[in-house]
Amino acid sequence: MLTLASDFGSPYPAAMKGVLRSRGVTDLVDVTHDLPQGDPRAAAFWLRFVLPEFPPGVHLVVVDPGVGTDRAAVCVRAGDHALVGPDNGCLLPPARALAAADDGDTDGGIEVFAVDDDDPRSSTFHGRDVFAPTAARVHEAGVDAIESLEGLSRTDEYDDYALPEAWVEAETAAGEVLVVDDFGNAITNVPGSFLDGRVGETIAVETAAGTREVPVVETFADVDKHDPLVTVGSHGFVECDANQGRGDEAFDLAPGRAVTLSFEEAIAATVPTA
Amino acid sequence: MLTLASDFGSPYPAAMKGVLRSRGVTDLVDVTHDLPQGDPRAAAFWLRFVLPEFPPGVHLVVVDPGVGTDRAAVCVRAGDHALVGPDNGCLLPPARALAAADDGDTDGGIEVFAVDDDDPRSSTFHGRDVFAPTAARVHEAGVDAIESLEGLSRTDEYDDYALPEAWVEAETAAGEVLVVDDFGNAITNVPGSFLDGRVGETIAVETAAGTREVPVVETFADVDKHDPLVTVGSHGFVECDANQGRGDEAFDLAPGRAVTLSFEEAIAATVPTA
Amino acid sequence: MLTLASDFGSPYPAAMKGVLRSRGVTDLVDVTHDLPQGDPRAAAFWLRFVLPEFPPGVHLVVVDPGVGTDRAAVCVRAGDHALVGPDNGCLLPPARALAAADDGDTDGGIEVFAVDDDDPRSSTFHGRDVFAPTAARVHEAGVDAIESLEGLSRTDEYDDYALPEAWVEAETAAGEVLVVDDFGNAITNVPGSFLDGRVGETIAVETAAGTREVPVVETFADVDKHDPLVTVGSHGFVECDANQGRGDEAFDLAPGRAVTLSFEEAIAATVPTA
Repeated sequence: MLTLASDFGSPYPAAMKGVLRSRGVTDLVDVTHDLPQGDPRAAAFWLRFVLPEFPPGVHLVVVDPGVGTDRAAVCVRAGDHALVGPDNGCLLPPARALAAADDGDTDGGIEVFAVDDDDPRSSTFHGRDVFAPTAARVHEAGVDAIESLEGLSRTDEYDDYALPEAWVEAETAAGEVLVVDDFGNAITNVPGSFLDGRVGETIAVETAAGTREVPVVETFADVDKHDPLVTVGSHGFVECDANQGRGDEAFDLAPGRAVTLSFEEAIAATVPTA
Repeated sequence: MLTLASDFGSPYPAAMKGVLRSRGVTDLVDVTHDLPQGDPRAAAFWLRFVLPEFPPGVHLVVVDPGVGTDRAAVCVRAGDHALVGPDNGCLLPPARALAAADDGDTDGGIEVFAVDDDDPRSSTFHGRDVFAPTAARVHEAGVDAIESLEGLSRTDEYDDYALPEAWVEAETAAGEVLVVDDFGNAITNVPGSFLDGRVGETIAVETAAGTREVPVVETFADVDKHDPLVTVGSHGFVECDANQGRGDEAFDLAPGRAVTLSFEEAIAATVPTA
Repeated sequence: MLTLASDFGSPYPAAMKGVLRSRGVTDLVDVTHDLPQGDPRAAAFWLRFVLPEFPPGVHLVVVDPGVGTDRAAVCVRAGDHALVGPDNGCLLPPARALAAADDGDTDGGIEVFAVDDDDPRSSTFHGRDVFAPTAARVHEAGVDAIESLEGLSRTDEYDDYALPEAWVEAETAAGEVLVVDDFGNAITNVPGSFLDGRVGETIAVETAAGTREVPVVETFADVDKHDPLVTVGSHGFVECDANQGRGDEAFDLAPGRAVTLSFEEAIAATVPTA
C-alpha cells in the first residue's frame, strides 16, 4: 500500500498517481490533497493524526514551500512504515507517531535517508519528478531494504520539526491554534489531559478578540445548536468549537493565533461576549 | 467492496480509510466526502440517487450531527447491500432504493440492526471509532451473516426519514428544494412525472423572491447560454436550472426553500423578472 | 486500469463509479472531478498534462457543456490508450499527447470512433448513462478491439480542438492564460523555450491591468516570499506566479486573458507597479 498526501488540490495529484502506476504501484490510497497550502505545521499535525491508523506502508507526503531550493529529499523509516517527501521537517512528527504506534517506543525507531535527486525533469514539480519515483522504489524494495537502494543514504542531518508545545498549569493553559478543520473546529496544542475531570465546568477562553466563557463538554451535543464549547477532540487536543457551527468564528481564531484557557479567570470573568 | 460517504471534507476520511485498511478491507471506493455538513436530508437524497448504481457491497455513511449523543449506531441490510452509520434516519431512503433495485419490491427487504458501540475511543469521531470498525466487520462476515455478529441485534426501533413529498395536481405542484448541486441546479421534490408531455410549454416558477416564467425543456442546451429553465434531472425530480449558469441564483433558491410550479399561472403571468 | 476525469465536483462522479463497478471494472483511478466547469479548453490542457504519466488504460473524460444536444459520444484510440467522452474536441489534445508518448510520433496513432448512444436513461447525465457504460465496454474488450464493439464505428468527422498558439519572437511573446491552478499560478500558452537562457533577466509582463517587471527565475524560491515572478512550469509553458502567493492576483490574470511578455520593453520600462 502506498498513500498520498499533499497540498496540491487538483489536478496535480493525478500526475503523481500516473507516475506511481507507471512504475507498477497499484495499491494507492489518497489520504488528502487538501492540506493547507505551504504549511508544514498543518501537514505535521494532520499526518501525525491519521497515518497511525494505517497498516504498514509507504506514505508519499508533498507539502513543499521550498520546492526548487537546495532542500533535500528524504525518506524516513518509522517502524514498518516509510515516509517520502521534502526535508522540511513535516515528516518527523507523523514518523514519530508511526514508530510509537509500531513498537510503543516514542523515542526510537526512526531513521532518515537522504535521497540523491539529481536532474529532476522540472524545478517546480518534485512531487512528480523526485518524490513519487522515490516512493515507488521504496515500495518495490520494501521498507526493510531502504539502505540497499541506490541514491539513498542514511543521514543524521535533516530538518526536524516539533509541534509547538503549550504552557500548561493546573488551572491555566496558554497555547495556540494548530489547525482549523473543515467544520470550523479550532484545534489547539493544549493537551486534552488539561481538561481531565473538568467536564461540566465553565472555562474562560481568552484570545486577541477578548474573553469568552463557555462550558467544558464531553461532546458537541451537550450544548444548544450553534453554541460555543470547549472539548477534547479525537486527536487528543483541546478544541474550541461550536455545536453545528464554526468554532473559529465564534472565538475569532485561526491557525497560529494565541489562546489562553483558564478555570481561574472564569470565576471572576467579565460578561461573556455575544 | 466497501464504499465511504461523509460530510467530513478533508482529512478526517483518511482516518476511516486507515481503520478499514488496518482491518483488512482493501477494496475501498470513495462515494463522496463533501455531502452538505450536518444535513441528513441531503445525505438521504444523494445516497438514494447514487448507491443503487453500485453492485452489492457495504456502504459506510457518516453524516452525524448528533455525534456524542445517545443516538445509536445502526446497520441496515437492504437486499444484498448493507449500510452502516448513525441512527438518524438518513440511511433509510437509500436503503429502500437499494432494496427496490435489488428485488423490485419497494416495501420490503430492509432489516435494521442496532450496534452495541460501548466504549468508543473518542466521543467526537464515531466515524473512526464506531462506524468504520463495524463496517469492516460486516464486510468481512458478509451481508448474509449480519445476525451472527457480536453486538449487532435486529431492532424495530430506529429513526426513519422520508424525503418530504410535494403536493402535485395536474397544472400545479408545490414543493421545496431538496439540494443544490455543484453546478447550481436547484433540485426539488416534485416528481419528474409532473412534466410528462409538457416539454416546450412555459411554466411559472414561484418562490419567495417572486414569479419567473421559463420554458420546460428536455435538456440544458434547449435554451441560450445562461438562460433559466425547468427540466427533469437524472434523479427523476424537477430541477430549476440555468444553461451553463447557476439555477439557484437565477431563481433565488436554496435547500429547504418553497417553490410552486404552475402551468395555470403562466397563462396570466406578469412580465418575467430579468 | 480505468481513469475518471470530470468537472462534476461531488457527488455525481460516484454514480459513474457505481456503473463501472457494476459492469465489472474494479481498477478505477480518480484523475480529478474538479476540472473547471464547462471549459473544454481547461480539460484539454490539464489532461494533456497528466494523462501521459499513466500506463496504458481507458480514460473516461466528461466535461460536457453540450449534454443533451446532438453532439456525439466518441472513443479516441491513442497508442495503447483509449479516451471516452463527448465529441467537443477536448479529448484530442490529450489523445495526441498520449500517442506521442506512446510511439514518439506526434502526428499519428489517433483514431476516432463514433458511439451509437441511442436511448440514454436521461438527457442530462450522459456521464452515467452513455460514457461510463461505453468506457466499461472498451475496458473489457481491450483497446485493440474497439472496432469489434457493437455501436462503435470509425469516423473522420469529429470535433477537434487545439490549444491556442502564442505569437513568439526572440524578445517578445504574445499569448493568453490557459488555466489558473489551485495555487494561483497563471499558466500561459507561451512555450517554455521562449525563456531559454534568460533566467536572471528582467521581463515585462503586460496585461489589461498594466505592465509589471519581474525576474525570470528557475524556481519560486528564487524570489522573496509573496514576490511575483515568471518561470517555466512543469507542463513546459511560461507561468506568471508569486512565491507562496497567488500569481493570478499579482498580475490580475484569469483564464482567457491576454498577456504579452517582453524583454525589450523591460529595458525602457516604467516603474513596476506595487
